[in-house]
Amino acid sequence: MSEITYGFVKTIEGQSFEQVKQKTVEALAAEGFGVLTEIDARATLKKKLDVDFRPYVILGACNPALAYQALQAEPQIGLLLPCNLVVQQQDEGRQTVSVLSPRAIFGLVQNPEAEQLATEVEQKLVRVLAAIE
Amino acid sequence: MSEITYGFVKTIEGQSFEQVKQKTVEALAAEGFGVLTEIDARATLKKKLDVDFRPYVILGACNPALAYQALQAEPQIGLLLPCNLVVQQQDEGRQTVSVLSPRAIFGLVQNPEAEQLATEVEQKLVRVLAAIE
Repeated sequence: MSEITYGFVKTIEGQSFEQVKQKTVEALAAEGFGVLTEIDARATLKKKLDVDFRPYVILGACNPALAYQALQAEPQIGLLLPCNLVVQQQDEGRQTVSVLSPRAIFGLVQNPEAEQLATEVEQKLVRVLAAIE
Repeated sequence: MSEITYGFVKTIEGQSFEQVKQKTVEALAAEGFGVLTEIDARATLKKKLDVDFRPYVILGACNPALAYQALQAEPQIGLLLPCNLVVQQQDEGRQTVSVLSPRAIFGLVQNPEAEQLATEVEQKLVRVLAAIE
């Protein structure tokens, strides 16, 4: 697992895009996150711009209890929800999964309660990424 | 229109939640943004936690051409897409619309090309907010 300025990235070798996507959804569920939104970037770009793009999906994950706390602490926090993960194909047998760092994003909010929640969510999401193998 | 650390907020008086939501979608379309995702926070919280929350919707807006440029410039940028707007009811005849500041968010990326795109998207989204009356 490697760190970027706004998240964490993990590379999975020897599995298909669909397998890794499925494992990501299952790992999220095990930590209490549902997938509220799913954007198939490849299909969207094909449809809207008629360009070819690699398999690339954006999953919007949400832990309802933590999201509810965040919404009560910060009325506009929905602008930063849900928390995204990206599954993308680098090569046929090589996928990357990345997850946004809630701490990086919620740091913009300048609300101590939101920051505390972000730390909790981040710990869970790092466990999600660690669990995908 | 007022500014918060991570976006812009506008209050609309004398119109219903549904009216303001519809106007937001139309104003987005006029600036070339489609709505890729829609999260009904009130319905989700009722279903998952059985709690009552005010009308609150998170719209995920995307300008396909600009998103495509961003994806080519920064492979993990999907973590920060789409760009969210929130429509929420404060009172029966008083709604707020807020939009995320792409500049604030993309500032985390430390990629000059992504930052330039963020500035362009932000100008469009501020026009969207200004157009909702």
